[in-house]
Amino acid sequence: MPEIRRDPIIGRWIIISTERGKRPSDFGHDKDNQGSIPCPFCPGNEEKTPPEIMAYRPRGQKSNESGWWLRVIPNKFPVLQIEGQLNRSAEGLYDRMDGLGAHEVIVETPDHTKSLAQLDDDKIQDVFWAYRDRIVDLQKDPRLQYVLIFKNRGSVAGASLLHSHSQLIATPMVPIRVRQEIVGAQRYFDYKERCIYCDIIRQEQQQNVRVVDENQDFIAISPFASRFPFEISVLPKKHDSHFEDIQKSEVNNLGRLMKSVLNRLERVLDGPPYNFILHNSPLKQPPCEFYHWHIEIMPKLTKTAGFEWGSGFYINPTSPEYATKSLREIENLL
Amino acid sequence: MPEIRRDPIIGRWIIISTERGKRPSDFGHDKDNQGSIPCPFCPGNEEKTPPEIMAYRPRGQKSNESGWWLRVIPNKFPVLQIEGQLNRSAEGLYDRMDGLGAHEVIVETPDHTKSLAQLDDDKIQDVFWAYRDRIVDLQKDPRLQYVLIFKNRGSVAGASLLHSHSQLIATPMVPIRVRQEIVGAQRYFDYKERCIYCDIIRQEQQQNVRVVDENQDFIAISPFASRFPFEISVLPKKHDSHFEDIQKSEVNNLGRLMKSVLNRLERVLDGPPYNFILHNSPLKQPPCEFYHWHIEIMPKLTKTAGFEWGSGFYINPTSPEYATKSLREIENLL
Repeated sequence: MPEIRRDPIIGRWIIISTERGKRPSDFGHDKDNQGSIPCPFCPGNEEKTPPEIMAYRPRGQKSNESGWWLRVIPNKFPVLQIEGQLNRSAEGLYDRMDGLGAHEVIVETPDHTKSLAQLDDDKIQDVFWAYRDRIVDLQKDPRLQYVLIFKNRGSVAGASLLHSHSQLIATPMVPIRVRQEIVGAQRYFDYKERCIYCDIIRQEQQQNVRVVDENQDFIAISPFASRFPFEISVLPKKHDSHFEDIQKSEVNNLGRLMKSVLNRLERVLDGPPYNFILHNSPLKQPPCEFYHWHIEIMPKLTKTAGFEWGSGFYINPTSPEYATKSLREIENLL
Repeated sequence: MPEIRRDPIIGRWIIISTERGKRPSDFGHDKDNQGSIPCPFCPGNEEKTPPEIMAYRPRGQKSNESGWWLRVIPNKFPVLQIEGQLNRSAEGLYDRMDGLGAHEVIVETPDHTKSLAQLDDDKIQDVFWAYRDRIVDLQKDPRLQYVLIFKNRGSVAGASLLHSHSQLIATPMVPIRVRQEIVGAQRYFDYKERCIYCDIIRQEQQQNVRVVDENQDFIAISPFASRFPFEISVLPKKHDSHFEDIQKSEVNNLGRLMKSVLNRLERVLDGPPYNFILHNSPLKQPPCEFYHWHIEIMPKLTKTAGFEWGSGFYINPTSPEYATKSLREIENLL
C-alpha cells in the first residue's frame, strides 16, 4: 500500500509510492517509451489496460471494445489505491495515512497521432465533459477530498506515452498549493468582499497587455507573476468556484478557447512539452464567493533548478507581456 | 532592469529577468556548456569574469590573479542588479519592485575536475566560510532581506558550467518557501514551546531509520515526507536560527558531514545531478528559538512533472527509509 505523509513544518502532503519503489540502479537514463508499440491506448488494444471506468462510444456498443472516442481507465501503475480505509495515524510528531485514492487515465482520442489541440471542437469538449463526469462520480466517495486533473504532454513534461491523454488523481487531502490559493483568496475576500480572480480578470481586460485570448465565457491570460515563460491561466469570466457546475454552453467555449490557446503555444514554441492542471475547489467545499476555478498551463521550456523547489523563488527569462504579444501575433499568420 | 513581481493570491515573489529575455526561438535544445573551454572559472582566466568580490589566497597576492583556492565573483549574467533603489509600486492590484539584489558565484576550487565532495577537508570547510563571509557582508545592505545560497551540480540540475561552484542570490524579499517554514515553525513553537526541528532531530535519533550520517555537531536525515528520492536534510544538532553564527569547530564538522553525505550520494547513485540549498533566517530577523537553519540536498533523479509545481503534491517512488539504508550501507564498502 502506498503511504501518504505530511511534512510537519509546512503541512505539505506527499505520496511514498512504495509499489513503484525504485532502487538506486533504477535511476539510469530514462527510457523514452513515447513511441512504444503496441500502444495500450489505441483502439483494438483495450485488453492491455485495466477494464474501463467509462467511455464515450456509440449507444449499444460493449465496454472494453473499440468504437469509443474517449476512454477512462484506471492507471495501470497507480500511485494511490482505491480499496481500503485511510488509517490516519501518528508516528511521533509525524502524520501519515494509507495511500488511498484513485488514479485514472483519460484517453482523449482513439487517434494515436493527434494532439489535444488537433481534436475537433466536439471532441475536445468531450474531454472536459469527461473531467466533469469523473469529478461528479468521485465526489460520492466520502473518503476523498480532492480531484487533481492534469495533463503531461511530451516526455520532458513527464508523459510516459505519446498517445494523447490526461490523468486524474483523487486524494484524501487537499494539495497544499490549492489550499494556499484558497487561503489567499479568502483573505482578499474578507478585506474587499470581492473575488480576487474576478478583480484580476477586470484589470487584465482593462490593461489589455496580458490577455492572450478570450471568448464569451473564458479568458486566457499570462499571469502578472508568471513563474515560467509562456505560462497561461484560463479562467471562466463569470464567477464560479466549482468546475463541475459548468454549463453546457460554457463547456463549448472552454473547449474552443483551450484549443486556440494550445494551438498558439504549439505554433509559437514549435510543439513544446507542457503541463496543465485544473485548480478546482475541494470536493466537500460548498459553492463560495471567494474561490474561482481555473486551468494553469505551463510550457516546459527552461530547466527548473532544484533551488526553485527549495525556495519557491522563480526566475523567468520571458516577460508575460512579451509572451502575450508573441501568442497574439501568431493569429495573424492563420 | 529586472523586475520583481508578487503573485497577488499566494504572495510568491518571482523575478522577470528581462535582460536575459528569451524569444520563442531561443528555447531550442539546450546547449550543454559543461565542457566549455576555456573555462572562465579556471586559474589564469580571471579576466574572463567580472572583478572578484573576495578570494581566499595566500597573503600578499594580488586580486584577480591566479593563486587563489576559492574565489567569489559577480555572476556575469545576473538575475538581479546591485545598483539602484527598490521603487516598490502598485499596478492595480499587483505589486512590483525593481530587480535589485546581488547574484554571485562561489568558485569552490581552482581544480576544473574536482567535485565539492572530492575537496580536502580544509577546502570544503572554506566553502562554508565563504558562504558565511558573504552573508555577513551583504547583511550590511539595508535594502536586502535574504541571502539564498545554493548549488546546482550537473546540467540536469541547472548547472551551466562543469567547474564546481555555488551561487548566491541576495533578494529584497524573503522567498515564500522559507517564509512558510518560518510560519509553520512559529506555530509549532507557540503551541509546544519547543523548536520543531530540534524535536525532529530527537525523534530521528530515537527511531534511527532515517539518519543517514551524523557527527558531534551535525546530523543528516532523509526527511519523513521526502519529496524526491534520496532527498537529505543536514541540520546543526544544537539549536541555531542563523547559519552565520556558526562556530569554527562547527564549520569543520559541517564540512566533514557534507563531504561524507555527498560522497555517499555519488557512490550510491553514480554521480547524480543534485541541488542543495541553504535555508537560513532572514537577514533582519534577530536570533530566535523557533527557526533552525539547515541545508536541503535534492538529487535530481526523477522527472518532476509540472503538475507537481501546480499542486505542491509530490510522488516519491523511493521511501526515505530505503534511501537511508542504501546510503548507510555504502559505508561498509569503503
